[in-house]
Amino acid sequence: MERKLATTTEGQPIRCKAAVCRKPGEALSIEEIIVAPPMPREARIRIICTSLCHSDITFWKMQVPPAICPRILGHEAIGVVESVGENVTEVTKGDVVVPIFLPDCGECVDCKSSKSNLCSKFPFKVSPWMPRYATSRFTDLKGDTIHHFLFVSSFSEYTVLDIANITKIDPEIPPNRACLLSCGVSTGVGAAWITAGVEPGSTVAVFGLGSIGLAVAEGARFCGATRIIGVDVNPEKFEIGKKFGVTDFVLAGECENKSVSQVIIEMTGGGADFCFECVGMASLVHEAYACCRKGWGKTIVLGVDKPGSKLSLSSSEVLHSGKSLMGALFGGLKPKSHVPILLKRYMDKELNLDEFVTHEVEFKDINKAFDLLIEGQCLRCVIWMDK
Amino acid sequence: MERKLATTTEGQPIRCKAAVCRKPGEALSIEEIIVAPPMPREARIRIICTSLCHSDITFWKMQVPPAICPRILGHEAIGVVESVGENVTEVTKGDVVVPIFLPDCGECVDCKSSKSNLCSKFPFKVSPWMPRYATSRFTDLKGDTIHHFLFVSSFSEYTVLDIANITKIDPEIPPNRACLLSCGVSTGVGAAWITAGVEPGSTVAVFGLGSIGLAVAEGARFCGATRIIGVDVNPEKFEIGKKFGVTDFVLAGECENKSVSQVIIEMTGGGADFCFECVGMASLVHEAYACCRKGWGKTIVLGVDKPGSKLSLSSSEVLHSGKSLMGALFGGLKPKSHVPILLKRYMDKELNLDEFVTHEVEFKDINKAFDLLIEGQCLRCVIWMDK
Repeated sequence: MERKLATTTEGQPIRCKAAVCRKPGEALSIEEIIVAPPMPREARIRIICTSLCHSDITFWKMQVPPAICPRILGHEAIGVVESVGENVTEVTKGDVVVPIFLPDCGECVDCKSSKSNLCSKFPFKVSPWMPRYATSRFTDLKGDTIHHFLFVSSFSEYTVLDIANITKIDPEIPPNRACLLSCGVSTGVGAAWITAGVEPGSTVAVFGLGSIGLAVAEGARFCGATRIIGVDVNPEKFEIGKKFGVTDFVLAGECENKSVSQVIIEMTGGGADFCFECVGMASLVHEAYACCRKGWGKTIVLGVDKPGSKLSLSSSEVLHSGKSLMGALFGGLKPKSHVPILLKRYMDKELNLDEFVTHEVEFKDINKAFDLLIEGQCLRCVIWMDK
Repeated sequence: MERKLATTTEGQPIRCKAAVCRKPGEALSIEEIIVAPPMPREARIRIICTSLCHSDITFWKMQVPPAICPRILGHEAIGVVESVGENVTEVTKGDVVVPIFLPDCGECVDCKSSKSNLCSKFPFKVSPWMPRYATSRFTDLKGDTIHHFLFVSSFSEYTVLDIANITKIDPEIPPNRACLLSCGVSTGVGAAWITAGVEPGSTVAVFGLGSIGLAVAEGARFCGATRIIGVDVNPEKFEIGKKFGVTDFVLAGECENKSVSQVIIEMTGGGADFCFECVGMASLVHEAYACCRKGWGKTIVLGVDKPGSKLSLSSSEVLHSGKSLMGALFGGLKPKSHVPILLKRYMDKELNLDEFVTHEVEFKDINKAFDLLIEGQCLRCVIWMDK
């Protein structure tokens, strides 16, 4: 019966529910849409659950391009392959997959290199279309086009993904944990693990204990860092941070005429081995750079500042300090090779994902998830699709 | 006889000739001075030859601190140990040594780490004194103190060095080659080899083909880079550059409405793997960063800009490009371990030092060496002490 049902949808448009962003900043409209069958090198996915990331909120509110309406937001998710287009051998119907916004074509020089995760064939962009054909697979019941988001659009019962955006995973992994690795948690954990290469016994400073900063702390703990200093303006973040490996806390703005960097230099006897800026303030990058250890310190930029903002560093400090500055998309992770490793580590109880999920709602309540994340008490809200 | 002569100077002040900077920008005064015996953990060295580096000229001209007169400049050299102070076991009378301005105490956490070359016990500074006691070993015949420069002061027949600033080398190496590794050539070669870690087959861009830039090119060639793009405003630099491995040349300022970074991105199909800024202009650092390869490109800052100058980078480029920015003193080399390796490579004909020496003069003509370097036709002028 299951097989017969599947046969009926394969190659056919699917009518299903989606949460459509029709006007910036207004409640998503849960409505019926049509999801076209996958084109060659694409797969259609039934979403199991999806989680809400701050980038969804940023683009939901945004009034100017690359924002566009109507659009189906959502990019952290897990799903099951419903059908595949021509020339797809990597996954098959029934496979459990995680969509990842960062393409991994497997063919270009970047995807073949162990040093880069920035696919050259399908460069990352906030496009309203599918990556390979620059067209949409979504229409509303009037036949009008609905746009895609970050090549994923997971706020829908069904979506279509390019094979470059699909990572196949072990189906035994709880879906409300696996979906976290689609974006935010991966970005933080990967920044510690791959971009920075945090070493056992090292000291780490994390500026900003939001979801990304906490994921950096967890990644640093996972890599064996023995001292993880969290920096935040909110004193409540220390208790939360402890769940993710934070061992010390600096309350920014309460440092008795000292800068945060001075406090960290004193605490560590010379500076942290690795500093992560997870807020998105150019001035904080400077503070992070100032308190990373001379000789080998690395500063990793993760926070998204306003478009056009500039980082400013002292020329002589760059020249004489032996420090380095770096950044990375998706924490430097290669989606198809690194994400399954991190999920395995979760199953082996070496990586903590459980504490990131603070809320869970049904799909019909997706707008509540937006409220929760905006209110600031939520790290990740998992949205379960209707069964 | 030789042994007896030596015995007479050990523990005694030595009267010898030195070239003293008595007024900023005025010809050095060759005069007799007194060099005190070494204190504990110091050695007194008879200089064989010394070469002139642009930093000598910078501090010779400088009117404000850390410039000071009278001072004995010079920091690229080779010499023979004349005598040692108490508690010196690392070198003994007759050893051939290269003085290196960057201390390597061998005891602190930095010197013990393979990741840092910035000694914590004796931090690098442009001090007028010896590093361990903050006193001078030089007096003039009136008994007035003459100051040290960069812990070396090699424009003298004899000088005193802290053991932290002494690297013992193979006495078979020609002195007028070994002295080059005291500073400039090491800085460039080391930046390619250690700081950047240039890999075989990679593409390198070098902004500025002065001595440091040419040494970077030579270091990149030594590391197996297959394409080395030199950038300079002087078209004659291409022919010179070819001697040091430069394979391609971009004449800055003649790029037909394109920026240098655009030209290099087009030449390389995406950017160079490693970009080195060797001029000392913050705006060029931005150009170098712009044309290093997304995903893995490294930009290394070597040029010394004006005090207080700032490097400015686009926040989103740092975040999204996967590139890194770094700098290093002395090319990231650890003086006592890396310099002997590079000299061995020279003897094995793998590293080219010969072409750096464009001029040689006798000590009495040391002021001519200043003219030659300022006129710009000279890479390195070796100054031979009187026999």
